[in-house]
Amino acid sequence: MNEQVEEVVKKHNKGLIMVITGNGKGKTTSALGQALRAVGHGFSVHMIQFMKGRKYGEAVAAETHLPGFTIELFGLDSFVMRDNPASVDVELAVKGLARAREVIASQKYDMVILDEINVAVDFNLISLEEVLDMIRSKPPELDLILTGRYADPQVIDLADMVSEVREIKHHYAAGIKERAGIEF
Amino acid sequence: MNEQVEEVVKKHNKGLIMVITGNGKGKTTSALGQALRAVGHGFSVHMIQFMKGRKYGEAVAAETHLPGFTIELFGLDSFVMRDNPASVDVELAVKGLARAREVIASQKYDMVILDEINVAVDFNLISLEEVLDMIRSKPPELDLILTGRYADPQVIDLADMVSEVREIKHHYAAGIKERAGIEF
Repeated sequence: MNEQVEEVVKKHNKGLIMVITGNGKGKTTSALGQALRAVGHGFSVHMIQFMKGRKYGEAVAAETHLPGFTIELFGLDSFVMRDNPASVDVELAVKGLARAREVIASQKYDMVILDEINVAVDFNLISLEEVLDMIRSKPPELDLILTGRYADPQVIDLADMVSEVREIKHHYAAGIKERAGIEF
Repeated sequence: MNEQVEEVVKKHNKGLIMVITGNGKGKTTSALGQALRAVGHGFSVHMIQFMKGRKYGEAVAAETHLPGFTIELFGLDSFVMRDNPASVDVELAVKGLARAREVIASQKYDMVILDEINVAVDFNLISLEEVLDMIRSKPPELDLILTGRYADPQVIDLADMVSEVREIKHHYAAGIKERAGIEF
């Protein structure tokens, strides 16, 4: 598709709200695949990762190789306790949400991915109401992807597209350890 | 991770057989996310797409930007009739399978993605027995990803990891047309 056609397509289409949820693997990877597609069309993509403090394989690859793809992390490299999150976990998630709102409002990006934001809401690190408000007030042409298990029904209501990734079988169960290039 | 550690990780880990199936969107994109991760670790990835004759946004992006990522298409840019496939559809899928076996045996890649191969089997374009034999005879260290709805139970049996992507909600239903950068 040439640039002119691209421009027409962009102007005449509504940005989509996509939710990728479920207990299976592949939610973040699926969002990254969407980023790869978007970049292929010359779109710019920004990803904000909640509850992650380490740059995984895909972050390294995406930042290194994809033009127009940027990523920011708002979390620590440790698990968050669901029933008793540390104040630093809350603080970082709240910062992440503020940054997400800023990025969305900036209109600098064609697609924004909020990775694991559903979990941050479920763990009460950030307010569901604020997330709903952020989604409702996004620029019409922006594609917004929200990933993570436990997506709230109200978030699902606002979405144009919802995918649930279900885990049918996992190699952890088969006794195979975490794998570089697969898990991270 | 530095190269030495990477090498140790690669040597000491078994390659995984992953199946991404289900009726939802995001199976190919999820596989592409895995490719992005793998490339981030310096691995080389080859993708063979069955029943596709057009290079979609992600193919363009991946080929252009990801080092060590290559893609081949074995299909036409038209839908295959499930109950009455054209002989050219069968021919291309059979060629794709032969090429897949060659690529897998070559040991030139760390990861091979066989996109939509589950559908090609379900549509009887290629033989289930040959696909099972191909999976069983893969080099131990190779990561093999098979995507597409209708994954056969025998393929699932051989897999280390199976994800099912379920469609909960889709924007087509909401009257929004196919979108560049999202659908292709």
